[in-house]
Amino acid sequence: MRVTFHRELSSIADVLITMTGLADSAMYSATRALLTADLALADSVIAADAHIDVLHHDLEERCLRVLALHHPVAIDLRTVLASLRIVSALERMGDLARHIATIARMRYPDRAVPADLEPTFVDAGRIANALTQRVAALLADHDITTVDELTAIDDQMDELHRSVFTTLLHEDWPHGMVAAIDVVLLSRFYERYADHAVSLSRRIVEQVTGNLPDRARSSG
Amino acid sequence: MRVTFHRELSSIADVLITMTGLADSAMYSATRALLTADLALADSVIAADAHIDVLHHDLEERCLRVLALHHPVAIDLRTVLASLRIVSALERMGDLARHIATIARMRYPDRAVPADLEPTFVDAGRIANALTQRVAALLADHDITTVDELTAIDDQMDELHRSVFTTLLHEDWPHGMVAAIDVVLLSRFYERYADHAVSLSRRIVEQVTGNLPDRARSSG
Repeated sequence: MRVTFHRELSSIADVLITMTGLADSAMYSATRALLTADLALADSVIAADAHIDVLHHDLEERCLRVLALHHPVAIDLRTVLASLRIVSALERMGDLARHIATIARMRYPDRAVPADLEPTFVDAGRIANALTQRVAALLADHDITTVDELTAIDDQMDELHRSVFTTLLHEDWPHGMVAAIDVVLLSRFYERYADHAVSLSRRIVEQVTGNLPDRARSSG
Repeated sequence: MRVTFHRELSSIADVLITMTGLADSAMYSATRALLTADLALADSVIAADAHIDVLHHDLEERCLRVLALHHPVAIDLRTVLASLRIVSALERMGDLARHIATIARMRYPDRAVPADLEPTFVDAGRIANALTQRVAALLADHDITTVDELTAIDDQMDELHRSVFTTLLHEDWPHGMVAAIDVVLLSRFYERYADHAVSLSRRIVEQVTGNLPDRARSSG
């Protein structure tokens, strides 16, 4: 029974790493689809999100089954509960990548992002991927010293988010209201993706140490 | 042990109803603060959110303790897991009310919402409150036939969200970019609040029946 149990916990951990990879690659492709107005790529991100949703649902069921059958306590119980929260954050991150792909799709064959904001969204995508890759590493090695690094990267995302507003408010915005709305929502989606990555990393710390790190528990 | 266990489950259910009331009243006050540029009220919403966060944290701890001590199975296990998801949605709903209050605060002494969009945000607030009040009733009586009603009310919110974009895109928007950004974000916050209310109601159905209702599992 114990062997099966720990094998199941370890398999759940593997699925979380796989799903982090899927969220990461959804975000990578969504950003690329957005900046190059690539319709097929946008569609593939939207289609792939359904797969993340299925994995989310399956993992919830497995966690429930583990709790029902094995009655874990202490660190094992924390691990199962942390897995439930992590999978729910990953599902939302997949949704956010899908939202970005949907905006790319809506504006095709045009590009949703005006040329002068392209570098900002290149950076936003790069930061988003840097975060998910660190989350994947954290899930694999539980080296919680990287959480501060994650938080610092998230600060860069917050700064980008503010810079988008500065650009929109700078003298007159020549790109019209559709582009303004798109850019506000896109920036929010990237910022929320980053928030989820950070909150997820904090769940890992909580699971490993039994405590949350200092920084305020929720934001965004 | 069993008596204590069921008393604890029932007390957890009570806290969820209390928290739903707090989210509801945060949303009511945030909307009022937004539409009347009431700085003190906006501040009170921002301050009250910290209380919701504390309740969230405490309830998570209690659920963990219940799982560790009582090893619930079947419907009781589903109830505890549903409570964890519900409390996390309520915490987010409190955050969203706080975000609305923060925009009201940033624009004080001006009003963030231009006069011609006031009726739309009056409606958004009304719909948000209608949703949370139905969620509170659902938590209290588990009458899952009201979920369809909740979904229909959420459709009204989605329509309002679209109507905000229509207004922004209609000929020329005379209120400038700051108001445009505020209105896009505000509309998104109301829409997400409604999404959380619906997803939360679906968690209650899942808890009561062991199954999710038909409508797609996640959105927004």
